Amino acid sequence: MKLKIKQNILMEHLNYAIKGISSKNLIPILNCIKFELTEHGLYLISTDNDIAIKTFIDKKEIDTIDILGEVVISGKYIYDIVRKLPNTIINIEEAVDSRLYIYTENSSFYLNCNLVSDFPQIDLEDHKNPIILTQKVLKTIYLQTAFATSTQETRPILTGINFKINGNIMECTATDSYRLAKKTIKIEENVIEDINVTIPTKNIGELVKMFINEEDQIELHIFNNKIIFKFNNIIMLSSLINGTYPDTSKLIPSEFLIHIQTKLNDIYSAIDRASLLTNESEKNTIRFQSKDNEVVISSNIPEIGNVEEKVCITKENGEDINISFSSKYMMEALKTLETEEVTLLFNSEIKPIIVKSPNNDQLIQLILPIKTY
Amino acid sequence: MKLKIKQNILMEHLNYAIKGISSKNLIPILNCIKFELTEHGLYLISTDNDIAIKTFIDKKEIDTIDILGEVVISGKYIYDIVRKLPNTIINIEEAVDSRLYIYTENSSFYLNCNLVSDFPQIDLEDHKNPIILTQKVLKTIYLQTAFATSTQETRPILTGINFKINGNIMECTATDSYRLAKKTIKIEENVIEDINVTIPTKNIGELVKMFINEEDQIELHIFNNKIIFKFNNIIMLSSLINGTYPDTSKLIPSEFLIHIQTKLNDIYSAIDRASLLTNESEKNTIRFQSKDNEVVISSNIPEIGNVEEKVCITKENGEDINISFSSKYMMEALKTLETEEVTLLFNSEIKPIIVKSPNNDQLIQLILPIKTY
Repeated sequence: MKLKIKQNILMEHLNYAIKGISSKNLIPILNCIKFELTEHGLYLISTDNDIAIKTFIDKKEIDTIDILGEVVISGKYIYDIVRKLPNTIINIEEAVDSRLYIYTENSSFYLNCNLVSDFPQIDLEDHKNPIILTQKVLKTIYLQTAFATSTQETRPILTGINFKINGNIMECTATDSYRLAKKTIKIEENVIEDINVTIPTKNIGELVKMFINEEDQIELHIFNNKIIFKFNNIIMLSSLINGTYPDTSKLIPSEFLIHIQTKLNDIYSAIDRASLLTNESEKNTIRFQSKDNEVVISSNIPEIGNVEEKVCITKENGEDINISFSSKYMMEALKTLETEEVTLLFNSEIKPIIVKSPNNDQLIQLILPIKTY
Repeated sequence: MKLKIKQNILMEHLNYAIKGISSKNLIPILNCIKFELTEHGLYLISTDNDIAIKTFIDKKEIDTIDILGEVVISGKYIYDIVRKLPNTIINIEEAVDSRLYIYTENSSFYLNCNLVSDFPQIDLEDHKNPIILTQKVLKTIYLQTAFATSTQETRPILTGINFKINGNIMECTATDSYRLAKKTIKIEENVIEDINVTIPTKNIGELVKMFINEEDQIELHIFNNKIIFKFNNIIMLSSLINGTYPDTSKLIPSEFLIHIQTKLNDIYSAIDRASLLTNESEKNTIRFQSKDNEVVISSNIPEIGNVEEKVCITKENGEDINISFSSKYMMEALKTLETEEVTLLFNSEIKPIIVKSPNNDQLIQLILPIKTY
């Protein structure tokens, strides 16, 4: 392998490839990036066995391609070396003794290579019918649901976001069993077979960090045991989580006795302040009591003090509610809404609370109340 | 105590007072801020027994002063509450049962107070002859020397910056016994008695973070066991470190066999890249070999690879040098210089290296070489 390439171009793609490497990996080959120089251009491939990333630099962006070939090289070292080189043309060539020679006018690095045959084979084939979204839509799904994912490894299925597609309706759900976030969108074309897969939340997090132009499209190629994302010149593979995602369709009530509407910023700030006098060990519990056109939000830590916050509300009927819930969960739910007003729906002090934008059911946030005696 | 004050004004001063509190402190009263409302204005005082901070809000900046008095209140809670309140007028008043009542139109907080008599007495008297600097000068001293301070508690005296003043010459020295940073400045007025004190580096770090306008002056009131800094409306007290600072005056050679001059950015980048192939456990050792008008900087990690960097230099005489040192220490020393060119001075491969700006002895960085066999 022998080529000349501009530092900034190689760096842009190393920035993607490095995301496929886990710094915690103890298997040396999984800390490597594979360089594949073909007549079409240069591919960089990395994998930690949970995700894989393949990025492509077209030959038009490479100064000279002298000798085709493949090398496997420590990801961390090649990344740091290219990052710290000045923005000039970098020469990269295989040297004797399986070493890679990286040099510019004043700098020369020799890095020991790993065996190409030791690098995992990764199958990045296309699905016949990929689902096509804009990157923006997928990022919004992530931002509006990921926080509700469980971080506990005791139920692995809850550490992912569930994507359920029937016809042209895609439902994306995350829950840690204390709260639930559900986003529903329409996709362009009907799927032929129903889809129900759960993608590790952290992998979608890594994916959305790679988006450059959110108006661009992204293809989702969904298989039984993996999902492949294709966008711009990048391919990312993610494992899927084994197991059946819990049926959450019956959790969200269809009718509510109490409808409250209020200004999102006002209620958010009031809860944010009230949460100052809560304990994390007690789930940051705050009390929420409506009375006519006002709600009083209160909490206390006996040895420190107490707080009471008042917020104006509009109620659709005469019933009042007196309920307790986690201020942290409520604030995280409120943050996902993009409207000035928020609707809060209740049935009783022991039934789920729904948080959503008025007249919009595309995004539903559900929070379970906390019993206090 | 009873007053009304704008949120932004109180917040500005709480930002200073909170710095006097150590979050690690197990003694509850040392996590508190004392509010002293006098006819002149409001004082906020905090201390963790190592430093103390007293800040003053003039009565002109307070909306109403209704009842004078003193309260002692949890620093963390009053800080967070005021920070999260909107920028309106905040009412603060002592309530029954030793509680402090903090309220605005929609928010009301009650915080339990501590006993005023339990709060430490802090003596913030003036020295007859304070030393006067601009805040900028003191900050520059900190930035150019603090990094060379020892972080090891085994020799506490080396965890501070030594200030030695004779006549109108102030020498500020930091060393961890492997390297040394020394800044010399002239002060306006001669001191009557020689001064030699060592101030904990972390306290100067907290101090310089409070500077707003670096052109403003700061007074240094130096006593046997403490130093008091006065600037703007803020007073900060710091303990001094007990013990005798080592005599470093003989460490810096007065003559050098080898003078090298080069571009600071070029040598910095070359060392930065070479340090990629060094191990922290081996003190990030790099080799530095001059030959005529070029220096070769090299290092290697056998299992990873090796690097060679070339930099053009100007030499004053014909001798070459072949020496090893810590790339980390050299980069930290180079970063303190404010010139485009740097002078490196050597006597032999086992003698101290001096790093400084050409024709300027106000700032001297000394690094001990590392023996390699």
